[in-house]
Amino acid sequence: MAEPIDFYFDFSSPYAFFAHLRIDGIAARHGRDCRWHPILLGVLFRNTGMGPLTQQPLRGDYARRDWDRLARRAGIAAFRIPEPFPLNSLQPSRAFYWLNDQDPALAKAFTARIFSAYFERGRDVSQAETVADEAKALGIDHQALLAALADPHWKERLRQETEQAMARGVFGSPFVLADGEPFWGNDRLADVDQWLEGGGW
Amino acid sequence: MAEPIDFYFDFSSPYAFFAHLRIDGIAARHGRDCRWHPILLGVLFRNTGMGPLTQQPLRGDYARRDWDRLARRAGIAAFRIPEPFPLNSLQPSRAFYWLNDQDPALAKAFTARIFSAYFERGRDVSQAETVADEAKALGIDHQALLAALADPHWKERLRQETEQAMARGVFGSPFVLADGEPFWGNDRLADVDQWLEGGGW
Repeated sequence: MAEPIDFYFDFSSPYAFFAHLRIDGIAARHGRDCRWHPILLGVLFRNTGMGPLTQQPLRGDYARRDWDRLARRAGIAAFRIPEPFPLNSLQPSRAFYWLNDQDPALAKAFTARIFSAYFERGRDVSQAETVADEAKALGIDHQALLAALADPHWKERLRQETEQAMARGVFGSPFVLADGEPFWGNDRLADVDQWLEGGGW
Repeated sequence: MAEPIDFYFDFSSPYAFFAHLRIDGIAARHGRDCRWHPILLGVLFRNTGMGPLTQQPLRGDYARRDWDRLARRAGIAAFRIPEPFPLNSLQPSRAFYWLNDQDPALAKAFTARIFSAYFERGRDVSQAETVADEAKALGIDHQALLAALADPHWKERLRQETEQAMARGVFGSPFVLADGEPFWGNDRLADVDQWLEGGGW
């Protein structure tokens, strides 16, 4: 099998919510695995001077309209932009890496639950207790997860992952690297598909 | 025939260069005409706090790489980012509206020539003489065009068109409005296509 592709996202990013539903299918269609990497978009923003879309005039209104129509097109009836938005994604991101070292498939299932909890059920997934609740449905031990979230090792791990993403040129969410080729944005997933199909353009 | 769709662009925008090649075909596939509107992106940027992509860290490098691969995919071998970049698009934009009032099809042919002159032949199309040169190949009278470029009427017209675009929520280039629905970016042309196909999502 060829090299895996890499999918970077922030749990607070609506475009990443849409992208996480499709990226593994695109990779699999071309015989690729996909590694997932939650990162802290706020840290990446420091490198570009960008900020949250919804805080920008005109672009914020456009983004909200765009998210709603993407949800309609995908048939995701419960989608809504929750409050608070954006939120601090430290806790689910740390939990992800703790799970990912045990079982990457479980870490992806956890990601899907957190995204759904936030964007379809309006839960505040910035809170450790909420993260542990959602994980519990997947059979993940509540106390072990809370202990991991309090462990400096996983705080440091997330910091390192975000640093490594920046070092690889990642500056937004979602962001895909396929054989070193960068693709920024949910609206470029079709390009990722075509790129993998053709082995570059 | 249903209402025309509207295509907004700045002559200095590489993504608009790619989009102008495809937008009329997309509209026609759904029985629509397409009205073209050059605008001054620098004026629109004042509303959003955005600036030229190439002047932004990381995003600038990404954009240059993205333009090159889009050109490769489309088989546009001569594409390159010219110097100066971005350029002042006042003159070709004024010329466009002068032509458009006479013959919209001619104004589109003129647009294609200006885009090609800038992005495939590296000509500085900010200059009135260069604009008139390129127009001449289409049988457009050289002196009449230069006279129009010096006429306050067409300066005012471009100002008004840019104001109207802003009033309709346009904030980037390219930008499409289809029955009031906004689509920002060359990478959303497939969405415009799908939107027109389905009559909304």
